[in-house]
Amino acid sequence: MVIRITALVFLGAILLGPTVGRADEGMWTFDNFPASEIASRHGVNISRDWLEHVQRSVVRLSNCTASYVSANGLILTNHHCVASCLAEHSGRDSSLLETGFLATSRTEELRCGTQIADTLIAMIDVTADVNAATSGMAAGAANDARKKRLTELESDCERTPPDPASGGSTRCEAVTLYQGGQYYIYKYRRYDDVRLVFAPEEGIAAFGGDPDNFQFPRWCLDMGVLRAYWKGRPARTADFLKVDFAGPAEGEAVFVAGHPGSTDRLLTVAELKGLRDRDLPGALLRASEMRGRYIQFGKQSESAARIVAEPLNSLENGIKVRRKLLDALHDDDMLAVKSAEEQALAERLQAGGDNPFARIAQAQRAEDAFYLDYLFLENMVGFNSQLFRYARAIVRAAAERDKPNTERLREYTDAALPRLTQRLEAPTPVYPELEQLTLSYSLERMREWLGPDHAVVRELLASDSPDSLASRLLTGSKLSDPAERMRLYNGGQPAVAASDDALIKLAASLEPKARAVRQQYENEVEAPSAQAAEEIARARFAALGTSVYPDATFTLRLNPGTVQGWQESGRTIEPFTRLSRLFERATGRAPFAIPQKWLDAKDRLDLNTPFNLSTNNDIVGGNSGSPLINARGQVVGLMFDGNIHSISGAYWFDTDKNRAVAVDTAIIREALSKVYDAKALLKEIGAGR
Amino acid sequence: MVIRITALVFLGAILLGPTVGRADEGMWTFDNFPASEIASRHGVNISRDWLEHVQRSVVRLSNCTASYVSANGLILTNHHCVASCLAEHSGRDSSLLETGFLATSRTEELRCGTQIADTLIAMIDVTADVNAATSGMAAGAANDARKKRLTELESDCERTPPDPASGGSTRCEAVTLYQGGQYYIYKYRRYDDVRLVFAPEEGIAAFGGDPDNFQFPRWCLDMGVLRAYWKGRPARTADFLKVDFAGPAEGEAVFVAGHPGSTDRLLTVAELKGLRDRDLPGALLRASEMRGRYIQFGKQSESAARIVAEPLNSLENGIKVRRKLLDALHDDDMLAVKSAEEQALAERLQAGGDNPFARIAQAQRAEDAFYLDYLFLENMVGFNSQLFRYARAIVRAAAERDKPNTERLREYTDAALPRLTQRLEAPTPVYPELEQLTLSYSLERMREWLGPDHAVVRELLASDSPDSLASRLLTGSKLSDPAERMRLYNGGQPAVAASDDALIKLAASLEPKARAVRQQYENEVEAPSAQAAEEIARARFAALGTSVYPDATFTLRLNPGTVQGWQESGRTIEPFTRLSRLFERATGRAPFAIPQKWLDAKDRLDLNTPFNLSTNNDIVGGNSGSPLINARGQVVGLMFDGNIHSISGAYWFDTDKNRAVAVDTAIIREALSKVYDAKALLKEIGAGR
Repeated sequence: MVIRITALVFLGAILLGPTVGRADEGMWTFDNFPASEIASRHGVNISRDWLEHVQRSVVRLSNCTASYVSANGLILTNHHCVASCLAEHSGRDSSLLETGFLATSRTEELRCGTQIADTLIAMIDVTADVNAATSGMAAGAANDARKKRLTELESDCERTPPDPASGGSTRCEAVTLYQGGQYYIYKYRRYDDVRLVFAPEEGIAAFGGDPDNFQFPRWCLDMGVLRAYWKGRPARTADFLKVDFAGPAEGEAVFVAGHPGSTDRLLTVAELKGLRDRDLPGALLRASEMRGRYIQFGKQSESAARIVAEPLNSLENGIKVRRKLLDALHDDDMLAVKSAEEQALAERLQAGGDNPFARIAQAQRAEDAFYLDYLFLENMVGFNSQLFRYARAIVRAAAERDKPNTERLREYTDAALPRLTQRLEAPTPVYPELEQLTLSYSLERMREWLGPDHAVVRELLASDSPDSLASRLLTGSKLSDPAERMRLYNGGQPAVAASDDALIKLAASLEPKARAVRQQYENEVEAPSAQAAEEIARARFAALGTSVYPDATFTLRLNPGTVQGWQESGRTIEPFTRLSRLFERATGRAPFAIPQKWLDAKDRLDLNTPFNLSTNNDIVGGNSGSPLINARGQVVGLMFDGNIHSISGAYWFDTDKNRAVAVDTAIIREALSKVYDAKALLKEIGAGR
Repeated sequence: MVIRITALVFLGAILLGPTVGRADEGMWTFDNFPASEIASRHGVNISRDWLEHVQRSVVRLSNCTASYVSANGLILTNHHCVASCLAEHSGRDSSLLETGFLATSRTEELRCGTQIADTLIAMIDVTADVNAATSGMAAGAANDARKKRLTELESDCERTPPDPASGGSTRCEAVTLYQGGQYYIYKYRRYDDVRLVFAPEEGIAAFGGDPDNFQFPRWCLDMGVLRAYWKGRPARTADFLKVDFAGPAEGEAVFVAGHPGSTDRLLTVAELKGLRDRDLPGALLRASEMRGRYIQFGKQSESAARIVAEPLNSLENGIKVRRKLLDALHDDDMLAVKSAEEQALAERLQAGGDNPFARIAQAQRAEDAFYLDYLFLENMVGFNSQLFRYARAIVRAAAERDKPNTERLREYTDAALPRLTQRLEAPTPVYPELEQLTLSYSLERMREWLGPDHAVVRELLASDSPDSLASRLLTGSKLSDPAERMRLYNGGQPAVAASDDALIKLAASLEPKARAVRQQYENEVEAPSAQAAEEIARARFAALGTSVYPDATFTLRLNPGTVQGWQESGRTIEPFTRLSRLFERATGRAPFAIPQKWLDAKDRLDLNTPFNLSTNNDIVGGNSGSPLINARGQVVGLMFDGNIHSISGAYWFDTDKNRAVAVDTAIIREALSKVYDAKALLKEIGAGR
């Protein structure tokens, strides 16, 4: 469901042969969109106005993309992008994931405690400034200076007051494009009061569940509706997208505007092999075991099944993605192509055996020595617990906030703290039985991977089992109470030092080791890799300029494509599914059970309505909830997934088979009007027509 | 714990350079042991008598190796080799795995329902005979003719009556060595009444549990004692090994005689990549999820933990092995060496693009198309249930037994049926709640991997969830009753056709699809690969003769080595551990809890007693329980594991770091005399001194 897709700049081909426009690959920044190439390829004119209007209508959520679809802050996104908000408002006895939700008036709209709605206002190129700040420095010093300068630039940017007409706050974030080829400050208008308006039942939003995830044909109403608020009233969103409920046609040119989360198309072969040999197999092993524990836990009772549903969905999605990523990296031919590209670039650089690719490979080998410590201690894979993550944030924020802004770890700068306090304040439900499961599990795996004789393991488990330790830690902590979290956060170092909360004490005791291995990572991996990547980026720029696109960074991009199916093992996969087949395919048992409202409405529905569709847009996780936009700038679909071939898009774009998957706007109208009786909502969405 | 280790014939080095004796790598057959090379390397003379005596003293169990250690059929092996027998005699309320077991008289010895004790009596070279039977045939016809001829040769061999002095039955098995370079009939004396005499608590047999598995230093009393019976009386075993309770010394020459299960050192690069890209990642994903389900299931209650303990141990062992196998196959340098070797051999063969390596690669690609069907339907990965495995065997045996012996699937020939009926007759406990877990799990994963629209999945889960289907199948079956199993088995096709047992009906309905995909596998993968492997083997033979050793095939081998530690990250790992450190390392919590008997005995024990030791013997899973033998032919240790580096031995032998791990005979004496008060047993084992 979270789309995790991407494309490869065929740099080798470009460097070694003529530059050829390659299909519709490419996640373009809005200030570098190849409009003239699109005009000649698709016969569609994308004007400056079109781009500006779309840019100001698209929303970045905390985890997804969305778009404004009314002047009153109404936001259209995916169901799976609002799932954590649904879980926040659910409990052991009932779940909005199961029942769905419709606010029949604004007072019924439900605050999503950890959600935000950001809109990109400006993109400021600071490359020259950053390069000047690091000029002539060794890798380690340059790494520190770069971060410091970016933090300063963020602070400067945030001093601009927001536009009073639209309200919101100003938030600025540094963005690294082309692996250090360019540095930007992106300026956003943020609303941090975001409320739930509508979500269908998960049974129809994710019909087919994990088995159908990343498959097509599909029948998922993966939609959710939110509303941005400012000072207790719906935000005024002058820029919003109109919706065309007729949906798109086969072959039509369509555009995806959104925030692709991350791609690895510019990673070196050494880095890709690090993923293949180390990161992905380990992550898959751990996630698969968690899946088994979650599923078995859920079989205990209906309420157990309910509270584990959302984390299980998200885990299973991650497993499917990583499984196919690993498959992709086992394509030795593709790695050979990348090796040849590197060879060609290295020759241009004429740096001999000490070329930047070799230095990155060296950094990868260095990382092997402390990778597991970093993972389990600093990345908290050994302490898989929501409460422990609160404890870490509280302990670390206390130490970091005592430092000047530019000296802090980047996730505790003034620009980053509002998101942190929002998380700490939110009344997110914490289930002790699930905490026990995940914490005990992760302690057990830490003992397995670090070994029983590792100093931290020895100390923690000297006379405890993972179960008994987890139980003692969790019963000894009050961090499930937001007020207690904020008391500690606001109390800073003295409050933390005085606390006898078991998890706070654990987090504090781990700090020296965790920070030390992070420092080691920064010195031995991050700094030399960043410097080498900048050198590579400069060589690429010398050859290509910005005629290629940067890797995804969860910042705003635009991608062109067309509505189309594909060929698979000699069969043609048609680009549209229809409502009728949903009813034929149901089994009556989850995840193939159709919700009762749909069964009741069946006779009223037009069974010929298009349901989901496939396009050749180049998208990836983070693009979930992105509007699919026609040449007139109207929404004709809602991206929610890719087909199974799309997952290898993290590393390269398979023109023949990589397809994105969207909800057709036609089924949205059909559902809102005939299944959910959501006339007011439909009218508000449709008001733009 | 199950040793899964191995070595690579550095064929490239041998083909391309001078033949060099390489360390102590090699699993030699007893009729081709390089005694003169050993004499010059170790200064030890291994005589024909030594070899014959050892050959007749070593035992092949159903899953492990062992040795006779008294004239009355007493068998010494590992605890983990008798774990399934301990589980057979355990239940929800108590477990011999936890408590251990000691028979204080012969009448207390407990029958192991599915165990056998085989001793190799003769090795008959039938290569010329088999080659004549397949001469000039195409791959498919040759594959069928080869199997048929081997079945005939087995039948002929089994007509020899057993030696009346020792009793037992005669069992003959075809053995393929050097991937088809040689064919043998191995003739065994079998006892199929094997009883449990002694096992320590799992807490000390597997101290450190999964975290310590494949680690060294270690402190595991991984021993178990069985006794072979014939006609209700202890078997007369004139050949048995004497035990030297002083144990071995550092640097001493030591020999492992046993049955290494399987190695892949002669697989082609294409086959290794099939393991790397397809088999291992999938198997790891599935096993890790099962691990999570098992662990979470075990947390429900003490009795749940008890019944899941043995399957969980075995699963975790498999995960650790496969994890390190996958790591090994990510060693691109090693694969490059193998590629170069293949290139060199292919050039000798002068077969151009149609060389046997290319044909094997082609067969691997062909397999991709039906691999998942084969796995889930024929290999029963979609039907993970003990009762379903009985059902499959009953249904298939009924069909196969109606055919002439040589026309049957190889696992249903007259030579194979005694093992099958032993399994069906054995009163192995079956726990419905565990069956429900494994069957539901596997149905769910079958739906995931084959997809919800696969014909078999559609049919089975048209209106069922995996849980509801598993429950219906299990409550609708009486196959947990051995008498019912034997009634159906003896009743043959009519009984099967008349049965309304839900699992029998399911197994019967799956037969056409399962057999079809097996046929496809045999035609498109097995037959062309076998023919190509024979060609490669002939080319190897032309270059090397039998100066190299064949891959492991769970048949008797002898390997030379010395007691030694190794260097790791600049540290020296000493070859012996001592009892004192066991007590220092304990945490009081499983798997680091020392059993009460040991705590009680602590003051009586010599804490300086050697406990476990490492050697550079080249062994692998199946070697578990093998005697470690000194130059005088006496047992000085009991192999039970390898270090973590040993796992890559499946593909190549790492001379510097691959170490085998054994129980020292000194700790066996200390334990039997001072902890378990097993004086009679110690006397019987020691009687040979």
